[in-house]
Amino acid sequence: MRFFSDNAATIHPQVMAAIAAADTLDTAYAGDAWSQQLDGRLSALFETDVAVLWVPTGTAANCLALAALCPPHGGIVCHRDAHIQNDEGGGPEFYTHGAKLFLADGEAAKLTPDTIRTVIDAIPDDVHRVQPHAISITNATEYGRVYPPHEVAEIGALAKARGLGFHMDGARFANAMARVGCSPAEMTWRAGVDALSFGFVKNGAMSAEALVFFKPELAAVTQYRRKRAGLLLSKGRYLAAQILAMLDDDLWLANAKAANDGATKLAAAAGDRLVHPVEANEVFLRATPEEAAALRAKGFDFYDWAAGEIRLVTAWDSPADAVGLLADAIREL
Amino acid sequence: MRFFSDNAATIHPQVMAAIAAADTLDTAYAGDAWSQQLDGRLSALFETDVAVLWVPTGTAANCLALAALCPPHGGIVCHRDAHIQNDEGGGPEFYTHGAKLFLADGEAAKLTPDTIRTVIDAIPDDVHRVQPHAISITNATEYGRVYPPHEVAEIGALAKARGLGFHMDGARFANAMARVGCSPAEMTWRAGVDALSFGFVKNGAMSAEALVFFKPELAAVTQYRRKRAGLLLSKGRYLAAQILAMLDDDLWLANAKAANDGATKLAAAAGDRLVHPVEANEVFLRATPEEAAALRAKGFDFYDWAAGEIRLVTAWDSPADAVGLLADAIREL
Amino acid sequence: MRFFSDNAATIHPQVMAAIAAADTLDTAYAGDAWSQQLDGRLSALFETDVAVLWVPTGTAANCLALAALCPPHGGIVCHRDAHIQNDEGGGPEFYTHGAKLFLADGEAAKLTPDTIRTVIDAIPDDVHRVQPHAISITNATEYGRVYPPHEVAEIGALAKARGLGFHMDGARFANAMARVGCSPAEMTWRAGVDALSFGFVKNGAMSAEALVFFKPELAAVTQYRRKRAGLLLSKGRYLAAQILAMLDDDLWLANAKAANDGATKLAAAAGDRLVHPVEANEVFLRATPEEAAALRAKGFDFYDWAAGEIRLVTAWDSPADAVGLLADAIREL
Amino acid sequence: MRFFSDNAATIHPQVMAAIAAADTLDTAYAGDAWSQQLDGRLSALFETDVAVLWVPTGTAANCLALAALCPPHGGIVCHRDAHIQNDEGGGPEFYTHGAKLFLADGEAAKLTPDTIRTVIDAIPDDVHRVQPHAISITNATEYGRVYPPHEVAEIGALAKARGLGFHMDGARFANAMARVGCSPAEMTWRAGVDALSFGFVKNGAMSAEALVFFKPELAAVTQYRRKRAGLLLSKGRYLAAQILAMLDDDLWLANAKAANDGATKLAAAAGDRLVHPVEANEVFLRATPEEAAALRAKGFDFYDWAAGEIRLVTAWDSPADAVGLLADAIREL
Repeated sequence: MRFFSDNAATIHPQVMAAIAAADTLDTAYAGDAWSQQLDGRLSALFETDVAVLWVPTGTAANCLALAALCPPHGGIVCHRDAHIQNDEGGGPEFYTHGAKLFLADGEAAKLTPDTIRTVIDAIPDDVHRVQPHAISITNATEYGRVYPPHEVAEIGALAKARGLGFHMDGARFANAMARVGCSPAEMTWRAGVDALSFGFVKNGAMSAEALVFFKPELAAVTQYRRKRAGLLLSKGRYLAAQILAMLDDDLWLANAKAANDGATKLAAAAGDRLVHPVEANEVFLRATPEEAAALRAKGFDFYDWAAGEIRLVTAWDSPADAVGLLADAIREL
Repeated sequence: MRFFSDNAATIHPQVMAAIAAADTLDTAYAGDAWSQQLDGRLSALFETDVAVLWVPTGTAANCLALAALCPPHGGIVCHRDAHIQNDEGGGPEFYTHGAKLFLADGEAAKLTPDTIRTVIDAIPDDVHRVQPHAISITNATEYGRVYPPHEVAEIGALAKARGLGFHMDGARFANAMARVGCSPAEMTWRAGVDALSFGFVKNGAMSAEALVFFKPELAAVTQYRRKRAGLLLSKGRYLAAQILAMLDDDLWLANAKAANDGATKLAAAAGDRLVHPVEANEVFLRATPEEAAALRAKGFDFYDWAAGEIRLVTAWDSPADAVGLLADAIREL
Repeated sequence: MRFFSDNAATIHPQVMAAIAAADTLDTAYAGDAWSQQLDGRLSALFETDVAVLWVPTGTAANCLALAALCPPHGGIVCHRDAHIQNDEGGGPEFYTHGAKLFLADGEAAKLTPDTIRTVIDAIPDDVHRVQPHAISITNATEYGRVYPPHEVAEIGALAKARGLGFHMDGARFANAMARVGCSPAEMTWRAGVDALSFGFVKNGAMSAEALVFFKPELAAVTQYRRKRAGLLLSKGRYLAAQILAMLDDDLWLANAKAANDGATKLAAAAGDRLVHPVEANEVFLRATPEEAAALRAKGFDFYDWAAGEIRLVTAWDSPADAVGLLADAIREL
Repeated sequence: MRFFSDNAATIHPQVMAAIAAADTLDTAYAGDAWSQQLDGRLSALFETDVAVLWVPTGTAANCLALAALCPPHGGIVCHRDAHIQNDEGGGPEFYTHGAKLFLADGEAAKLTPDTIRTVIDAIPDDVHRVQPHAISITNATEYGRVYPPHEVAEIGALAKARGLGFHMDGARFANAMARVGCSPAEMTWRAGVDALSFGFVKNGAMSAEALVFFKPELAAVTQYRRKRAGLLLSKGRYLAAQILAMLDDDLWLANAKAANDGATKLAAAAGDRLVHPVEANEVFLRATPEEAAALRAKGFDFYDWAAGEIRLVTAWDSPADAVGLLADAIREL
């Protein structure tokens, strides 16, 4: 019973079926009938004209977005626990050609206008100092917290006031949306977001994420960057097909809801062991090494996080019975 | 009846089955049971210890290989018609952080020791000049010619004598091997090759290429570069499974042979229209615009290449009857 | 009697005096009274508003200009014998983060609209191909030829028509101007040039070149790049003072005329030994190894260039008697 | 009476005389008689074989050193107030092609083995995490504190134990040495330092710093990087001559001592206003805006630092009477 990460989850059958259905000869790269539908389908979802590029990983989506928003000599404000800072092996620096990440504070990996201002107000406008050019937030955050739209909009307003680009790492965008229930438009471009890494891999896809530009002109140059980075798969139809399948009948929301529900059950069992409120599909809880060992002895796999802390992640495919057993086991600690 | 490119071919059923069989929960990234087999399986195939990284595109494989062999301030000798020069959107320059490609001549995109020496002997050892650090060849070449092992070995000997790394772009390595019939070892490391981009996507896979290092220490640093480039898919098992399926029962060779056979049939029909001898799965032939139109009118799709020249590419899945009809149509021109 | 290069010439006394006169406490970097005059002085010279950055080398000026005109994924058309291709150790690739140099042909290192079109018309508008974003010419060229303003304007018109930036490497701009006698405006922005590397080091300065932007907005971002590259000397006044001294009383033109005159005398002596017409301060002439040895035996130092060819460079400070003796020696060959 | 920065100080007469004495025709770049002496002279000073490159700025020296010690995908531990982090406009990221700076704590910009370990021990050995490859310290620090040799050696031992390169930003190395009185060897390579940015510009030179490699093999590749960055001045003799003049009769130590003495006098006057102990030539002291205004009203110029804090910097040429007047003025506050 694995609660390591949604990263390793299986493929939803409808996605697998869509891959199989795409197995016909078509134009290479992004000229095929599937890829050509993405702009339209996601424009409809977001209720505005967007330009979309599929990519095989969330790191690729994030890094291409940041490169579109920040020049090599600029900087990007993010949380000090952000995935782009800690888990992408320096990808943002590679894609931006050396931009600097400015690390801001905030509870449970959430930035606030105040914590952002603390960072950028300390940077004089001077050629000796790397100047901020963009803000990046993660929604849901690395600790499973969710920015509701009004919080996104406050940061978006700050970004606009300071002339900064605004990126949302949405590796778990679906989980955030399933939690909040607002429209995708409200969570993104209406709140000032310029580019969204819309994740599907953690949520039932195999190898496809959508990089959504709410300023379509940013996609034009990014097409060249995507190719240059070796990210333009020749059989792009198999990626586009995954995304389309996830969008059909809002499978992306249903899957995320399933994952969130699992976490909610675990949270209910965890009570005051919780390190952070559980708003998406990640549960961080206090557990002594002995308690962690006890859970593992019952067949549950998961990561130790900080000292005396473990992380449990549910996914779209977490079996209800396994979740139930884990909830019981947590209660019994 | 599409003869545009093997890039857009379908997935071999055994590969699709392997993808489906990998659809079980396992460790993320490259820690899964499939990925862990690659070193062993390819070491067996190449009869030496190799270190292997899966990547989703041939461009990624090529660029990571070049970055492992050439520092940012160095240069790489390749043919002026090489894919890395003309069709990767500047990927080699991106991955190497600005290394220069030195363009050499040679018939049908084949380098020779002489054409390489012409380039590198003209570069004095001087800090003002970018110094050559590597040679890259494509086998089979961009024009469907094949280097037999002794020609590779001559270039390998030159590389060794001059202290240069040696990369083989094997997007159609299988086609070259199907043609020559030597051992994979003979064609690569025994001939001095340091790194091979071993292509599967054009040959029946969906999204997996193998970057094979014959100097395993090069793989260690490349693992960091792969992650940093956003190329480390979280569900790597679906890539590794494709490669393993292609290796099973030498499917890679059988598929390549099928593709080559199609091209051979077209070549026989083309006679003295051929621009280059046909040794792999690409056929370049002289055709007037009217002749090209006539072929298209019969339902065949293909690229115009140069003026008065068209390119026909067969793939593992080119239907025998379509090939036969095209051969007939060529004869009737 | 050294005719190796103007690179190693001495400092004009008026420049040395200006350096000494700047030896007073002032604001660091580019905030001092000397640096602050550059925009005004060069705007007056060029009869338009320009923005100017001093830099310590011509390579730095060229590379910063190219980075302002071409994105990392783009390309720059230059002559295959251009200094930026052959003598800057890959600096353009470093500063542009991997842009590609497209090598065009032309007599004596001169591009023409035709040779440029040959290169760029062969590049389809396709993400797989690096797209051209700029043209760079050298005036006077690496072989001492001069583009008159109408030839520059023809290239400028092509650049404009194709949406390409236009850079002039003017390491020997002064020599070209001394030859042609037109206005600086006519040779540059009126002919479509966006950025000029205005060289002084070969012409009597010690360590200062002026990067002149005819689109001042390009200077704003370049200020950050200059600092980032470690090119923003803290005691910038000593660089600015050199440039100002070179501009005073058109010392730059007088020095270049002196250098050109020396070359003209050598050219007259060389007769049909000349490889290229002599239009600036470089003389390329045919000489057997024995003849070259004979010149050296008489005390003249110079570079062998190609086989059977030597290069003689005069500078602002080439002693008239040494030039006369060399002219005699050439006649006596 | 300017106490802004030693950055803007004048040139020592012996340095100016050396520049004038170098004004003779010689080989370009670094082949001249002055440049050729640097390795020998600095090897003698450091009592070991070193390889030395002159560069025009401290930023250039630091960035080339870091690029020699850290690959693009690696990271460098430095203090969060380090010059390389805050005052070089992202130069380290540019030269290293995107390495990450890991920010550590420590009093007055001084790292300790403990604060370094806190940073690096938190980084698991995992391709998702940028791995540390080097440590950089500044001596004297950005707040005018000095690492004595034994503290450097403790960090050097940690670097060695962890396989990390070790760089010392010695923009004010002379001030540190003048304070400590140990041998240059003891402060550097005997304490484990691999590369030193040996600053002269703040200390009486015009435009020359020495990048000293205690592992000479690092200089070989750095020569190519220096050229590529546009830092290889064609008339290098004027830079080398400055460094040689600074070394003659230990002018570098005498100048630093003069600067330090000025600061010591100010410190004595400041008493408990001092924010940091004064060990070099920088004085940070508490002063209300009114007090700062009072000092300025008496003709003293300086920077406001943090709120309620000002910075006073003395230089080799700070007039004794101005220092005395400032000391008096501080006492009178």
